[in-house]
Amino acid sequence: MMPLYGAIEAGGTKFNCMIARSPEDIIAETRIPTTTPHETLAAAIAFFQPYASRGELVALGIGTFGPVDLQPGSPTFGYITYTPKPGWSMTDFYSPLQRALGVPVAFETDVNAAAYGEHTWVEANRSLDPFVYVTVGTGIGVGTLVNGRPLHGLLHSEAGHLLLPRDTDLDPFDGVCPFHGACLEGMASGTAMNQRWGQPAETLGDDHPAWQLEADYLALGVANLVLTLSPKRIVLGGGVMQRAGLLQKVQQKVRMVLNGYIHTPNILANIESYIVAPGLGTRSGMLGAVALAKDLGKIEA
Amino acid sequence: MMPLYGAIEAGGTKFNCMIARSPEDIIAETRIPTTTPHETLAAAIAFFQPYASRGELVALGIGTFGPVDLQPGSPTFGYITYTPKPGWSMTDFYSPLQRALGVPVAFETDVNAAAYGEHTWVEANRSLDPFVYVTVGTGIGVGTLVNGRPLHGLLHSEAGHLLLPRDTDLDPFDGVCPFHGACLEGMASGTAMNQRWGQPAETLGDDHPAWQLEADYLALGVANLVLTLSPKRIVLGGGVMQRAGLLQKVQQKVRMVLNGYIHTPNILANIESYIVAPGLGTRSGMLGAVALAKDLGKIEA
Repeated sequence: MMPLYGAIEAGGTKFNCMIARSPEDIIAETRIPTTTPHETLAAAIAFFQPYASRGELVALGIGTFGPVDLQPGSPTFGYITYTPKPGWSMTDFYSPLQRALGVPVAFETDVNAAAYGEHTWVEANRSLDPFVYVTVGTGIGVGTLVNGRPLHGLLHSEAGHLLLPRDTDLDPFDGVCPFHGACLEGMASGTAMNQRWGQPAETLGDDHPAWQLEADYLALGVANLVLTLSPKRIVLGGGVMQRAGLLQKVQQKVRMVLNGYIHTPNILANIESYIVAPGLGTRSGMLGAVALAKDLGKIEA
Repeated sequence: MMPLYGAIEAGGTKFNCMIARSPEDIIAETRIPTTTPHETLAAAIAFFQPYASRGELVALGIGTFGPVDLQPGSPTFGYITYTPKPGWSMTDFYSPLQRALGVPVAFETDVNAAAYGEHTWVEANRSLDPFVYVTVGTGIGVGTLVNGRPLHGLLHSEAGHLLLPRDTDLDPFDGVCPFHGACLEGMASGTAMNQRWGQPAETLGDDHPAWQLEADYLALGVANLVLTLSPKRIVLGGGVMQRAGLLQKVQQKVRMVLNGYIHTPNILANIESYIVAPGLGTRSGMLGAVALAKDLGKIEA
């Protein structure tokens, strides 16, 4: 019997759960609304339980909103730590799942899982290292792989909050980040767009100047990621990035901002294959959690 | 017979060369002025040659100014690539040394070597990963270790050029970086200080407002490194950092800028042991090159 892998993509509004062997071999899927930790984790356990009790489930991968404690040996390893999401601060996510299902559990941030998914399942990405995934949605998150593994350190990447140049004459908006005001997320998240323009970003026409300004901020963030991590590819995903033409605007602006300093063909000539859309569409995180479950032994080795 | 390691710290004005087994066991040292590539590399080879021909030299470590090509298999692997240093663009640094001395050569950026030196030889740093070394001198450079190894990717870290917020009302200085103007190096390098204040930075008194402004820019850069790489320790070295009180100003400002977002004791309570001065003083790069030579097999495995 072929082993099955469980996967959870845990977000602030819903938990997506999946049983699969690969993107081409998905056995079951469900969507659970994010309510209280107790109720939500119990519903997730109930979904996986039959596969675990039949011995088919061999591992579980979790990609979750955060911040989270990824440090093995820490007393709060596997917790969602200080999140603004009501009721979820200091929630032990890892242990209840691990105990109830009795299988090894890979525990990651949602964006590290998405990076891992894009890197594992998209053939063209497989050998590219370091590898970065950025999601631009309600918030902005950055997932990072180095030496094939999600980057863990003091915490994990929080590069959605990169501090960036701004021209207050051109754009007097103060940003929406409660910690930093005008950081990347504060200026360029969907939430920031909605508030700056006084209407939902998705209702702004393709020709609205909002999109060039959005590209300008995203490009500054991406340029700083290039300068710091020297990734071999950057994937830009998330709801906001689905706007037609935005990816191309970001590509052009990154090249302008770096201004010839990073002297490689990837930036100078082939930036459209260096900064790319997700190969897995909206399923990078979900399928990344499957890959994390599958590679659990390999990653922790 | 105990094996000997050769090391070169290659800078724009001088090449420091060393034969050593460890920081406590240094056999010979010399300083070669950086003139033409041919002349400079020949003088370095002449220094190491006797140890190589007696079979005592088992490996050489190079930490060099750049940018450099670190990509094994690249046709220009081991080259200094597009440097503003006259005469040095597209200089093959690795091959002449490797051929003349007949030993394995570790080839790295000066700052990656410095990071490696601090991580290898300073006991308290040894298990901390990721690990970052920043030099603030004529220019600003950032060396990065992840999973114990120097971070290589598209190129290597170029985070000295991080793009940062600025307040043009408070500081109308446009920066000295020929590529980005007001990037980190453009605003906070020794060169930038000299030009902004119209006098050499070392002649500015400890109470001059220059030092708080300097700390403000360095803190923005360090904060972005924390957000992106999540290092477990950051070492701030280089000539400018030797100013009394500057390190403490940077520590305080980093905590202010992150504003509680990175919710860990390292930032909130113990930042003085998180952002630190080099344990090896001005010899991080040199002794890092020794360590790179010593660990050559381990790193490339």
